[in-house]
Amino acid sequence: MSTLDTSRLERVQEKAAILAEALPYIREFSGSIVVIKYGGHAMEDPALADLFAQDVVLMRLVGMNPVVVHGGGPEITAFMDRLSLPVEFVEGLRVSDEATVEVVKMVLVGKVNKDIVLLINRHGQPAIGLCGDDGLLFRAARQAAPSGQDIGFVGRIERVNVGVIEHIASDYIPVIASIGLGYDGQAYNINADTVAAEVAVALGAAKLILMTDVPGVMDRQQSVISVINRPDAREMLAGGAVSGGMIPKLEACMRALDGVPQAHVIDGRTPHSLLLELFTEGGIGTMVTQ
Amino acid sequence: MSTLDTSRLERVQEKAAILAEALPYIREFSGSIVVIKYGGHAMEDPALADLFAQDVVLMRLVGMNPVVVHGGGPEITAFMDRLSLPVEFVEGLRVSDEATVEVVKMVLVGKVNKDIVLLINRHGQPAIGLCGDDGLLFRAARQAAPSGQDIGFVGRIERVNVGVIEHIASDYIPVIASIGLGYDGQAYNINADTVAAEVAVALGAAKLILMTDVPGVMDRQQSVISVINRPDAREMLAGGAVSGGMIPKLEACMRALDGVPQAHVIDGRTPHSLLLELFTEGGIGTMVTQ
Amino acid sequence: MSTLDTSRLERVQEKAAILAEALPYIREFSGSIVVIKYGGHAMEDPALADLFAQDVVLMRLVGMNPVVVHGGGPEITAFMDRLSLPVEFVEGLRVSDEATVEVVKMVLVGKVNKDIVLLINRHGQPAIGLCGDDGLLFRAARQAAPSGQDIGFVGRIERVNVGVIEHIASDYIPVIASIGLGYDGQAYNINADTVAAEVAVALGAAKLILMTDVPGVMDRQQSVISVINRPDAREMLAGGAVSGGMIPKLEACMRALDGVPQAHVIDGRTPHSLLLELFTEGGIGTMVTQ
Amino acid sequence: MSTLDTSRLERVQEKAAILAEALPYIREFSGSIVVIKYGGHAMEDPALADLFAQDVVLMRLVGMNPVVVHGGGPEITAFMDRLSLPVEFVEGLRVSDEATVEVVKMVLVGKVNKDIVLLINRHGQPAIGLCGDDGLLFRAARQAAPSGQDIGFVGRIERVNVGVIEHIASDYIPVIASIGLGYDGQAYNINADTVAAEVAVALGAAKLILMTDVPGVMDRQQSVISVINRPDAREMLAGGAVSGGMIPKLEACMRALDGVPQAHVIDGRTPHSLLLELFTEGGIGTMVTQ
Amino acid sequence: MSTLDTSRLERVQEKAAILAEALPYIREFSGSIVVIKYGGHAMEDPALADLFAQDVVLMRLVGMNPVVVHGGGPEITAFMDRLSLPVEFVEGLRVSDEATVEVVKMVLVGKVNKDIVLLINRHGQPAIGLCGDDGLLFRAARQAAPSGQDIGFVGRIERVNVGVIEHIASDYIPVIASIGLGYDGQAYNINADTVAAEVAVALGAAKLILMTDVPGVMDRQQSVISVINRPDAREMLAGGAVSGGMIPKLEACMRALDGVPQAHVIDGRTPHSLLLELFTEGGIGTMVTQ
Amino acid sequence: MSTLDTSRLERVQEKAAILAEALPYIREFSGSIVVIKYGGHAMEDPALADLFAQDVVLMRLVGMNPVVVHGGGPEITAFMDRLSLPVEFVEGLRVSDEATVEVVKMVLVGKVNKDIVLLINRHGQPAIGLCGDDGLLFRAARQAAPSGQDIGFVGRIERVNVGVIEHIASDYIPVIASIGLGYDGQAYNINADTVAAEVAVALGAAKLILMTDVPGVMDRQQSVISVINRPDAREMLAGGAVSGGMIPKLEACMRALDGVPQAHVIDGRTPHSLLLELFTEGGIGTMVTQ
Repeated sequence: MSTLDTSRLERVQEKAAILAEALPYIREFSGSIVVIKYGGHAMEDPALADLFAQDVVLMRLVGMNPVVVHGGGPEITAFMDRLSLPVEFVEGLRVSDEATVEVVKMVLVGKVNKDIVLLINRHGQPAIGLCGDDGLLFRAARQAAPSGQDIGFVGRIERVNVGVIEHIASDYIPVIASIGLGYDGQAYNINADTVAAEVAVALGAAKLILMTDVPGVMDRQQSVISVINRPDAREMLAGGAVSGGMIPKLEACMRALDGVPQAHVIDGRTPHSLLLELFTEGGIGTMVTQ
Repeated sequence: MSTLDTSRLERVQEKAAILAEALPYIREFSGSIVVIKYGGHAMEDPALADLFAQDVVLMRLVGMNPVVVHGGGPEITAFMDRLSLPVEFVEGLRVSDEATVEVVKMVLVGKVNKDIVLLINRHGQPAIGLCGDDGLLFRAARQAAPSGQDIGFVGRIERVNVGVIEHIASDYIPVIASIGLGYDGQAYNINADTVAAEVAVALGAAKLILMTDVPGVMDRQQSVISVINRPDAREMLAGGAVSGGMIPKLEACMRALDGVPQAHVIDGRTPHSLLLELFTEGGIGTMVTQ
Repeated sequence: MSTLDTSRLERVQEKAAILAEALPYIREFSGSIVVIKYGGHAMEDPALADLFAQDVVLMRLVGMNPVVVHGGGPEITAFMDRLSLPVEFVEGLRVSDEATVEVVKMVLVGKVNKDIVLLINRHGQPAIGLCGDDGLLFRAARQAAPSGQDIGFVGRIERVNVGVIEHIASDYIPVIASIGLGYDGQAYNINADTVAAEVAVALGAAKLILMTDVPGVMDRQQSVISVINRPDAREMLAGGAVSGGMIPKLEACMRALDGVPQAHVIDGRTPHSLLLELFTEGGIGTMVTQ
Repeated sequence: MSTLDTSRLERVQEKAAILAEALPYIREFSGSIVVIKYGGHAMEDPALADLFAQDVVLMRLVGMNPVVVHGGGPEITAFMDRLSLPVEFVEGLRVSDEATVEVVKMVLVGKVNKDIVLLINRHGQPAIGLCGDDGLLFRAARQAAPSGQDIGFVGRIERVNVGVIEHIASDYIPVIASIGLGYDGQAYNINADTVAAEVAVALGAAKLILMTDVPGVMDRQQSVISVINRPDAREMLAGGAVSGGMIPKLEACMRALDGVPQAHVIDGRTPHSLLLELFTEGGIGTMVTQ
Repeated sequence: MSTLDTSRLERVQEKAAILAEALPYIREFSGSIVVIKYGGHAMEDPALADLFAQDVVLMRLVGMNPVVVHGGGPEITAFMDRLSLPVEFVEGLRVSDEATVEVVKMVLVGKVNKDIVLLINRHGQPAIGLCGDDGLLFRAARQAAPSGQDIGFVGRIERVNVGVIEHIASDYIPVIASIGLGYDGQAYNINADTVAAEVAVALGAAKLILMTDVPGVMDRQQSVISVINRPDAREMLAGGAVSGGMIPKLEACMRALDGVPQAHVIDGRTPHSLLLELFTEGGIGTMVTQ
Repeated sequence: MSTLDTSRLERVQEKAAILAEALPYIREFSGSIVVIKYGGHAMEDPALADLFAQDVVLMRLVGMNPVVVHGGGPEITAFMDRLSLPVEFVEGLRVSDEATVEVVKMVLVGKVNKDIVLLINRHGQPAIGLCGDDGLLFRAARQAAPSGQDIGFVGRIERVNVGVIEHIASDYIPVIASIGLGYDGQAYNINADTVAAEVAVALGAAKLILMTDVPGVMDRQQSVISVINRPDAREMLAGGAVSGGMIPKLEACMRALDGVPQAHVIDGRTPHSLLLELFTEGGIGTMVTQ
């Protein structure tokens, strides 16, 4: 009687092993909230964007509650140019006068947010877009640049109204634009990584995942650090072992650890990076733990 | 022994009569959905806008489910001008090429919608903004001008996904921008009166209320018609007895009557016009009934 | 285009103002228990009795839980006369031997109570009559006159079985006759104002309202005191500033304040006095607060 | 080793047999409604009244829903005499002018009903008294004597509002006085056997039990008929085989069979007659079946 | 008019008295768990077995939750003989090597347990059989004979997983074989009386009932002790006042009293012994109380 | 900046692809019942048995409801030999006299069943064993061999009491021995494949999976047929294209299709065969569909 040929058998056994490896994670995270900061190439490259949407939908299918947070720098700048408004950055942060914030809000809420909502909808799970105004989701306070220089209506989050996200997430995938409302009624432009961290803490998420355009946090040998704990990460930040755009990302991870067991910096350029992070034993990128 | 003086007594009795008149309506509409098309002076005049928000919040307080639908013509035109985009109308409808629709969506969703959401939030009941993309709320199809002339990405609603509105309305006041999504993935600009009518029919609302800048539907003597039934309204439309901007409004009322018992054209310039319509015996403006 | 004429507009605005004033109260008291001592002219004058029943029904319609407590002095005396039984009062209290109590119970429970029940039923909300025997609602103890003189089977309430009232009030308007059951199995005649106060405390009512035949508590200038707090009311009682029938009413209010935030003495001769008290800013009569 | 002596053993075995016989009935009637017309010696003899109350409480304890209906002839006549009102009967029915009905209602509702309520309460299960006014329980229409002679405000039941009884019965034992309300707002005196039959039909009771002062329906040999079906009972009535007070009782049974599977005429003079009827194989008295 | 003849009346009154005596117990134990150790003649005599099954079904019918625990010595020995396996007892306990335990388990679980399940099923209430393996119901530890001699895989219960029994008991009558699972994965033979006691404690049962082949615990005059409290029973055990098979039974009762208010030793040879114990005032056999 | 090396990247991408392939199946079968006939090498080889138990537990973890059905031929024969009972087969079916059936039941219920229960328990999900007696799970009728020859107490299933399995499956994994109860009270030996098919139909399972010792159904070229529909399978059976042990297996699949959309014959010798069947696109073995 015929049986499976050897090479097919090997492939089958590998499949079986991957599945047996994945199923306990699916169980573990079933019902859990995972907050994902979406951005970078994974947002700009249509093929990656499509795989991202597919992953978010699959997460929902197997019982998780993904919450997507996004910013949208390049689209804002492009629109500012069309309106001939000056674009200025201080210490990597957009200087935001009233006209700028109005444009930021229109582009993020009226364009970028809805594009993501549609992309997810198209893969078969309904998403709803939110910004800080909806149900008074975020309360923001003005925040200067790290150096202390005033940069206008740029804010930090003071309060997250979790009820709103939970209500939406009970039936829909929430997609949140990083716009907050000040107690003065003014809109504030807020960094999306820190929004994602604050949302994750407020929701008591199981994980925060920051999608970036790098493989993870690097050690001095430029190898990806697979797992790092909080004290070590704090030391890296203090000792200048991380630099550039990774600094705010790692700081966002540290903040998240106030209420979230695991924060991840993953490479959004890897297809299905979310699935790999969630459902394989080593995950990908860097995990920051307690 | 002292008693109430006569004039105070009269005032007190009038109060008592108004309350006794109002309470049965409060009961009747408790738990009912009322769809309100918000626009015109009531949106542009800050004092009226504030009273509108207060009325919507009071409706919610006494157990009704108000659903707000809005457009936003003047703000769109202003922004088109800032972008030096040409503004063109055919038969009262905005000709909408792709660039126009993009601007319409950003202004309605990213600005006008959030302004209304905030105004209602500030009166103490949380609101959430929606557009046709959220949870695939509206499916739109392209629609030419009445004369048959093509006017670009202007649409009519083919399907309302009521689940989305019901989910939001269970805890929040939904505020809906009149932007729909075509089956082709393209955004469509849709007339807000007809959006309100379609939403009212889909939700099985108890009332549709269109806020306008006129006292109601007028008869040939230019007196407001208090109540008109469907056949008579159809005859007025056919016989040319209504004209200008009232035509699409009356047509929206007629469409609403397919699923809603009462449709109203009220004068948004009258302070608290919503309360007066809902909780007094004659109401205000014109009621179109079966 | 025609608009509202000025005088109609003024009337309309006044209506709108009254409604905007009333709605927050409707919300505030929705779901609240309000205990009403019903008696005096409002019970004897058929027109006032009808308005009373209408008000109670409207309270129920907008979500409140009215609980009606009543006595019935004049009807008892009339029936005592028909039976040639001697009628005697000591310090304003009916001397009650066994034969008297039997008649009091038959008249209150078998006649007055059912008349009130029917009146409310006829306005469209079902009511159910109760006395202290039903579900062992009240446990009473014998109580002498203030001077210490024994006056027979006259009692005070020692325990209210709130479960009975709550069970009835979940679907019906409870109407309670002021008859209590002693631990000795004997029926006791109890003052209806104090029954109302005990019921209000036991139920944790939001308000106790005593309907009387005076405009309220009077100050030395014979003007109605609109609001008085507990210490001041205690001083008035101690200093002899109130007299006659107002003394036990004010004492009932003081007792109610042990568990109820607000107790009211209102003029039952004013039509719709309940609505005015509940849904207007100043209310009517005298409010005693903490 | 010692064992049970023979006579104790026999007694024990008999106990066991009775219990094994009773348990399936307890199960069968668990959750069932049983309507009991209470009257006669069982009401007048304090020892029997006490056993009756005990039986009703035991029924409730084992999960049944007993509903008690009562009249109260002798007490009414006594009170009519005290008021020097004329007492007149036509064909066994009390001629009831307005003054008579007022007294009937006061005595039944304000005295007899509350005495039964208290008796049951005292055995540890709470009861609540009702009459036709409460929640508009009964709607009555005027009914002449069988011969057609008008006898005043004597009625028959046209409608039973079962919701009221079910609401009370969910937590309390309902005790119902046979007073009905006419559509004219007038109280009507109604025969308690027929009230019990109507209530049993309206509630879909499992049994109607009429407590009488005779052993049951007798055959021509003056032996109690244990079981009789509907056609045979109809023939007995038509053929004059029953007479006197048994006629209306048997007719009430016949009416009950429109909605109730079994109607019983039992001897209220036998102690624990209710338990014997319900939980022994032959029951006692006469059972009328379909 | 004929009435009941005297002797029938006496019998009827006795019935009534037995019922009135039984009903409060039915109420008291409704919803209660009663753990019954089944064994001895009541298991071997088919007529008694049938009455036992009937009693268990009647207990269930009136709302109790009977849980049956059993061993099965004689059947095990018979099967051991068929397999020519040596049968050895030490201090009344079966010496159990691996082969013996395998046979014990097969006979108890695959034969005796299913026979009891079927007997109960046949009386109309569904039963499900369990042993220590099912849902890891019992965790057992090895236990030497009282003298300290090792007797193989004989165990005592260390943990009862009550969730399993409660889940089964919510819809079915659990029938439990006295086989436990060691932490080493080995099956253990456990004394069924002690299994019953542990199950009763773990479930918080209202009663433990041990069915035996004696009338109860005997005093020095060989009379059955009707009630004995814990300290007195402890003294009897310590003072050697009980002997033979009664020792482990009384010890099981003592253990049960750690969590169960009443433990009973009854004579399984008396027909309907369970009903008599549960529903008559004196019960039968011996009750050990706190 | 360093990135993933190519070979690791390939492996990662393959993992991602397998997960993306598996997740929709996990969703599709979440909440579904899958009936698995367990037997053959997968039961005899301890390593395979362990992987089987792991797969069943993983199925449960991701929300499926696995139901295990088993026979146990080799263990029965071994025990028959120990008892020196004659072992006889007719047309592949065990001839079963009363002594044989008693042994079959003891071995299957008291040994094989509990071994499977323990194996699953040990992987962390509780299982409960059942046979046809429990809750009267199966009703069996006597069935001759295909040739018509009587072979004793061998049966077929006439009725499955699904309530029992559903009750167990709500909290536990049911493991069912293929023993049925005749209406005559006699135990019957039933083929486990047909038991599994009947159970699957009765439960409305999503799948029936028969674990065998062959790769699947073979075509004439001895290649495994991946998918075959019902008419083609019927033709294969009729045309003699299948032979030996595959005939009853394919017939069981055909029977299952009366109520189950898909029936599978898989190779139990392949590790994790259940996972591969359920969560990969092609599955393994042969699928018989409508």
